[in-house]
Amino acid sequence: MTYIDKLAAIRSLMEQAHIDAYIIPSSDPHISEYLPDRYKCIAWASGFTGSAGTLAITLSFAGLWTDSRYFVQAREQLADSGYELVKLKVQHAAEYADWLAANLPPGATVAFDGWLMSASLAASVRKPLLAAGITVLEDIDLLAPLWSDRPSLPENPAYLVEEAVTGESTASKLGRLRAEMRRHHAGAHFISSLDDIAWLLNMRGSDVICNPVVLAFALVTNDSALLFIDQTKLSGHDRASLRASGVETADYAQVGAHLAGLSGKTFLLDPRRTCSRLYNTLLPYVQEDLNPTTRFKAVKNEVEVAHIRETMVKDGIALTRFFKWLEEAIGNETITELSLAERLRRFRAEQAGFVGESFDTIAGYRAHGALPHYKATEASSIELRPEGLLLVDSGGQYRTGTTDITRVVSLGHTTAEERTDYTLVLKGMIEGSMAVFPEGTRGYQLDALTRKPLWDELRNYGHGTGHGVGFFLNVHEGPQVFNAAAVDVPIEPGMVTSIEPGLYREGAYGIRIENLVLSIPYADSLFGTFRAFETLTLCYIDTQLVDRSLLETKHIKWLNDYHAMVYGRLTPHLVEEERQWLLEKTTAI
Amino acid sequence: MTYIDKLAAIRSLMEQAHIDAYIIPSSDPHISEYLPDRYKCIAWASGFTGSAGTLAITLSFAGLWTDSRYFVQAREQLADSGYELVKLKVQHAAEYADWLAANLPPGATVAFDGWLMSASLAASVRKPLLAAGITVLEDIDLLAPLWSDRPSLPENPAYLVEEAVTGESTASKLGRLRAEMRRHHAGAHFISSLDDIAWLLNMRGSDVICNPVVLAFALVTNDSALLFIDQTKLSGHDRASLRASGVETADYAQVGAHLAGLSGKTFLLDPRRTCSRLYNTLLPYVQEDLNPTTRFKAVKNEVEVAHIRETMVKDGIALTRFFKWLEEAIGNETITELSLAERLRRFRAEQAGFVGESFDTIAGYRAHGALPHYKATEASSIELRPEGLLLVDSGGQYRTGTTDITRVVSLGHTTAEERTDYTLVLKGMIEGSMAVFPEGTRGYQLDALTRKPLWDELRNYGHGTGHGVGFFLNVHEGPQVFNAAAVDVPIEPGMVTSIEPGLYREGAYGIRIENLVLSIPYADSLFGTFRAFETLTLCYIDTQLVDRSLLETKHIKWLNDYHAMVYGRLTPHLVEEERQWLLEKTTAI
Repeated sequence: MTYIDKLAAIRSLMEQAHIDAYIIPSSDPHISEYLPDRYKCIAWASGFTGSAGTLAITLSFAGLWTDSRYFVQAREQLADSGYELVKLKVQHAAEYADWLAANLPPGATVAFDGWLMSASLAASVRKPLLAAGITVLEDIDLLAPLWSDRPSLPENPAYLVEEAVTGESTASKLGRLRAEMRRHHAGAHFISSLDDIAWLLNMRGSDVICNPVVLAFALVTNDSALLFIDQTKLSGHDRASLRASGVETADYAQVGAHLAGLSGKTFLLDPRRTCSRLYNTLLPYVQEDLNPTTRFKAVKNEVEVAHIRETMVKDGIALTRFFKWLEEAIGNETITELSLAERLRRFRAEQAGFVGESFDTIAGYRAHGALPHYKATEASSIELRPEGLLLVDSGGQYRTGTTDITRVVSLGHTTAEERTDYTLVLKGMIEGSMAVFPEGTRGYQLDALTRKPLWDELRNYGHGTGHGVGFFLNVHEGPQVFNAAAVDVPIEPGMVTSIEPGLYREGAYGIRIENLVLSIPYADSLFGTFRAFETLTLCYIDTQLVDRSLLETKHIKWLNDYHAMVYGRLTPHLVEEERQWLLEKTTAI
Repeated sequence: MTYIDKLAAIRSLMEQAHIDAYIIPSSDPHISEYLPDRYKCIAWASGFTGSAGTLAITLSFAGLWTDSRYFVQAREQLADSGYELVKLKVQHAAEYADWLAANLPPGATVAFDGWLMSASLAASVRKPLLAAGITVLEDIDLLAPLWSDRPSLPENPAYLVEEAVTGESTASKLGRLRAEMRRHHAGAHFISSLDDIAWLLNMRGSDVICNPVVLAFALVTNDSALLFIDQTKLSGHDRASLRASGVETADYAQVGAHLAGLSGKTFLLDPRRTCSRLYNTLLPYVQEDLNPTTRFKAVKNEVEVAHIRETMVKDGIALTRFFKWLEEAIGNETITELSLAERLRRFRAEQAGFVGESFDTIAGYRAHGALPHYKATEASSIELRPEGLLLVDSGGQYRTGTTDITRVVSLGHTTAEERTDYTLVLKGMIEGSMAVFPEGTRGYQLDALTRKPLWDELRNYGHGTGHGVGFFLNVHEGPQVFNAAAVDVPIEPGMVTSIEPGLYREGAYGIRIENLVLSIPYADSLFGTFRAFETLTLCYIDTQLVDRSLLETKHIKWLNDYHAMVYGRLTPHLVEEERQWLLEKTTAI
């Protein structure tokens, strides 16, 4: 079936069911960012493979609503699909719902599959539609009858991780969680989000690419904990361990029926991370808040932090070897964006405890670097030459931590504009890294401090400044973010977040420099308690691209100190030739 | 009756009505910040006169919950009142509700007067109480039977302001409002907030001290507009003008009955600016959003901006004369904080179009300056001597604009610490004023840029960085603010906001430097549309207190340019002696 055929088939089912518009969101019943193949509905229906977007189909129009990161990709992938690209004004906003409200007559019917939309998104979709007199049906899966070769759910094994790695037992985590439930006067807590469940139960798996999570739901009460999971995933030993921690298992598919059978309890749940279908089952006994585990998980304990610091050494060694190889190989052997990414994966794989990549490497040479979420394909991958800028954004999953780093390196000749842009981005990254801020400061304030050197020169970037990073878990995790959005979460000591300002000149090049930082206590004064950041990432920053005249003394000092630290921490693990090479790369400017 | 007697009387009524806790908020049926005397319930009950606070009374405890601005004042005013000060962790948070939820048994009853609490505050009060199994009664006024000499509602006249001043007719404003109502699919819009009503109807009055507003409600539909008001306030001419603009009048007291009689329409309203009592009358036909007039009003039109610029010249002349008088009089005549404030009012009153103060002048000498909301009383007012720092935060209401300015001046000998603190605050004020920022930037981002010079030196202040300012309206108006809170409102060209960082050393001195700024278009680049600020306030900044070594070249340039502008704009209106004095004060450093 072509995409055109599929669209016609969907419309035919819509007509049979008297549905005027059908919405296909990019999600799964766990409101995941990265989806198991079974839930890649948008790719199946339209060919678009970006990680964010929504299809809305009426009988006369079919559109993909997505944000600026994906405009170029969507335009290419949607050619001849029957879908038009609709540009979102605000990332993640339900603008298709406003469009449907404005374009359908009162009395019309809009439908979607409530398993694939969070309860909070469903509420914002519902609002303009109901106000316009439109009926909303939330349990319509029009793809099931059409998608004959739909992949089944993953059956990969799951495993428990020992306390020496996680720093806290499941029993202790459940204890903290139950204290939060009491504070919310909630008799039960239902968790759909896979990283929360993995953290709470010290459990990992490989059901989702790049994210070491396991498809599951969890239901916690004051005296019980029930894990809904494909029970064949767990060894008998691990099931016994869970039971010893007070966690019983039940079949994954039973979750809906089990919830429907409960009553009388007040459920604490996060409407942004619970699908509308299950949320509606629990209404009206719902107390809405962030999952307490999301806040707990964001603050790394001392054992985790110690592991992360060591993991950064491993990642730094792999990156040093990779960039050294690249510098020596460029011009001598054929290197493409694709082969480069594979080579980087292999350098990381040499490190003990490496599990896989934490996301698909973004290796963007010259103009491709200007696409912040570029992923090279066989068709797009270009060969590197000894000139211009190369952007490499990559990360690893290790048994002892998750990494995420972006570097831009010069492959040869560069222009003054490239060096100016690079230096301003670096200045922003340094400003963010050097920030001293009082207790209670939110990520949007740190976002502004990082962007200021770019704003002052009328430059900016269209993505966030930083995201939380999991501990051997998802490379994107909340609740904290560094961006302009009104996310009201204070930055606490123990949080690990990226700082990654950028600059993108379409058709020319892209720049992004990213380190992970740990929030730490800094000092107390008459005026309160202040925090600062410890930079975790250990990899040189290309100083060939730095225009020293654009930096102040404090920025140059930060850069030289950082390079001294990178050199000091990595050299014990490098052979002489590598040491010599790194010494040169980290020489003070 | 003493406060102790009143508390006993309230508790006696509580017992009769089987109420376990009674909440007295600081508000009126319009959710005003400044209250008509009739609604000064907290002052009547407890003696506390701060503008923010909440009383919560149980049979065994009585507390005033207020924020750090009022800790010192509350401690003094509550002595022997029977009330204890409870310190709020988060300004404006309903922490008393959490306290009641934790301290009352399930089955208990909590009551308040729903006319005096916004619908959104009532919702956050209700939430923890209901979760704890506590009953909430929202239409209990326990003060009415006790408060025998309660002031009646103000009967001051209201008047219309001509379009040559406001720049837009009521008919045009109603047209814009109705377009927003259609966008919300709302058949009606109910407005309780007095500044919104004053703006919409180009009407002013003097029902609330310092705020030129009129007690009223407004109800707008697609083809009608009804103003609930004490009809004797308006002249026949003004009523005819309103009628010509499509606005009918009805009696103020009829609003509740009128709303209860309506049905079938969807009401757009702002739950933060509508009292719970009237909100509940309209349920469930409610679409919640900011009042569209709040957004409209925040963006000043060209006529208003031109008037504001001229008003700033008037205010600047008054301030120049005031500070010149002060410098010459100090040490030669007796000046107290109170007499100083009165003298400043008189200098302003000499200016054409002066209506009154826009808020009670904060004149804080030495340690009193460390109380950000200090208001001198006969008992507290101290005499100024020729040494130390004086903080003066004041503003005027003129027929053509509202001003708000803070300056700190040296009265003689100052310490190095005072000069360092002063310079760092000034550096923050300049950083905020010089900010260049992209379209869509929120106030919390500008807050961080302003605070950064202080954070870098482990200093901070406990209040917001800036607030919106009305046009011959309230000196505090939304929706934009510059503070750390997650207020998701972009700063648009035409908005007038204060920038007022500070620093407070308890028992020693306080510093705050405040200008009003206008958001303006700045430049377009490849990376978007950028905004900047035009400083509106025209008054010298005491350079005797500046430690030049703490400023960068760009800050010194800003200060010198500002002083050149102040001098240039004010001198045409000054006599030679004043000109000479100002020339000295504005000499480049």
